Amino acid sequence: MSPALHRHPHFVSLEGGEGAGKTTAINAIREALQARGHEVVLTREPGGTALAERIRALVLKPDAEIAAEPLSAEAELLLVFAARAQHVRQVIAPALQRGAYVLCDRFTDSSYAYQGGGRGLDPAWIADLERRAVGLLPGLTLLLDVDVAVGRARANGRDLWPDRIESEHDDFFQRVRAVFRQRASEDPARYRLIDASQDQAGVAGAVVAAVNAWLAQEPDCG
Amino acid sequence: MSPALHRHPHFVSLEGGEGAGKTTAINAIREALQARGHEVVLTREPGGTALAERIRALVLKPDAEIAAEPLSAEAELLLVFAARAQHVRQVIAPALQRGAYVLCDRFTDSSYAYQGGGRGLDPAWIADLERRAVGLLPGLTLLLDVDVAVGRARANGRDLWPDRIESEHDDFFQRVRAVFRQRASEDPARYRLIDASQDQAGVAGAVVAAVNAWLAQEPDCG
Repeated sequence: MSPALHRHPHFVSLEGGEGAGKTTAINAIREALQARGHEVVLTREPGGTALAERIRALVLKPDAEIAAEPLSAEAELLLVFAARAQHVRQVIAPALQRGAYVLCDRFTDSSYAYQGGGRGLDPAWIADLERRAVGLLPGLTLLLDVDVAVGRARANGRDLWPDRIESEHDDFFQRVRAVFRQRASEDPARYRLIDASQDQAGVAGAVVAAVNAWLAQEPDCG
Repeated sequence: MSPALHRHPHFVSLEGGEGAGKTTAINAIREALQARGHEVVLTREPGGTALAERIRALVLKPDAEIAAEPLSAEAELLLVFAARAQHVRQVIAPALQRGAYVLCDRFTDSSYAYQGGGRGLDPAWIADLERRAVGLLPGLTLLLDVDVAVGRARANGRDLWPDRIESEHDDFFQRVRAVFRQRASEDPARYRLIDASQDQAGVAGAVVAAVNAWLAQEPDCG
């Protein structure tokens, strides 16, 4: 029997495909939480610790020596979970323990979407890794949902670095989006689906409204 | 249901604690196989591909920037399995497919011993990772078994690099040895227990004899 997942009310994650406007949304949430006097720790995945950022580089921005080696889906999954195990223990759990809010750009849902939906790995495997290596679930997950073509056009408009995942084709991102939407529909207590086809100000306004509603509803366990 | 493990008769691994004499033994086996006209691929774990060697460095030889970050047992396990997933797909499976013998310095048994026995992680988790990310089992595993104190003294005598694992204490290595011996006793068809308290020539002679007996007994499936 693998261990249970603990859902923490001060842990907020943002999820969404390319060009959904996550960065603007995260900054807006941070300001809203800070305006209420909360400490906010802003972090991202894969990454968030020195070692986890090294792992991120291996996965997303391989240098010339390793870029020629095809990265198997299995290794990709294990690397992002190794990074996540570090991130939880070194950054997220300590911050939550001292009462801070943690605002994370992507978390385990992204593994279900990208490595599960995108790469076709077994979601039961991902769930097992989540319980054994992570053990922690956001209290609130904001899913910035946008049509793949729209998000792609935006992401290409900005000068985003090409990486192993962004170089995938549209059917990959369709599968990613489908998993995100499916998970959101299965867990409405945790997920808020944000229409990210709006402009950035509209998306930021919608996420702040969702966070404020969440704060009004949740008891303060900090 | 996770996938099955395939046991390949041309895949030979060497296992054992510190100072057991693996290097000399591996070279002796290579010479014995080559003398019979076989192609031999010599490799090691963690490592064996460009990416896997990078992962090895993160685990065993962290540089100053990441050495200060405690590596969780969970992340260590996931990193060695990420490296192994690459190693199997890029090196071991292709070599076996073309009929070569693969001689590997450590393989999955080491994860059961070091991350399972040593670090206390659930062997059921390791078994699941083995099936999902590796899928391959050596046909023959030579366990170079030696008393921890004797192996330690030898390893310190040579100028071995200190690393995250070699800096562990004796009780860690006692647990590692116990798991190796336990696994050997449970799977006598695959394991050969070699008394590594002998001198290096004695160990090399014993492993070559074990390999020759194995070759005489196994049908050639190459």
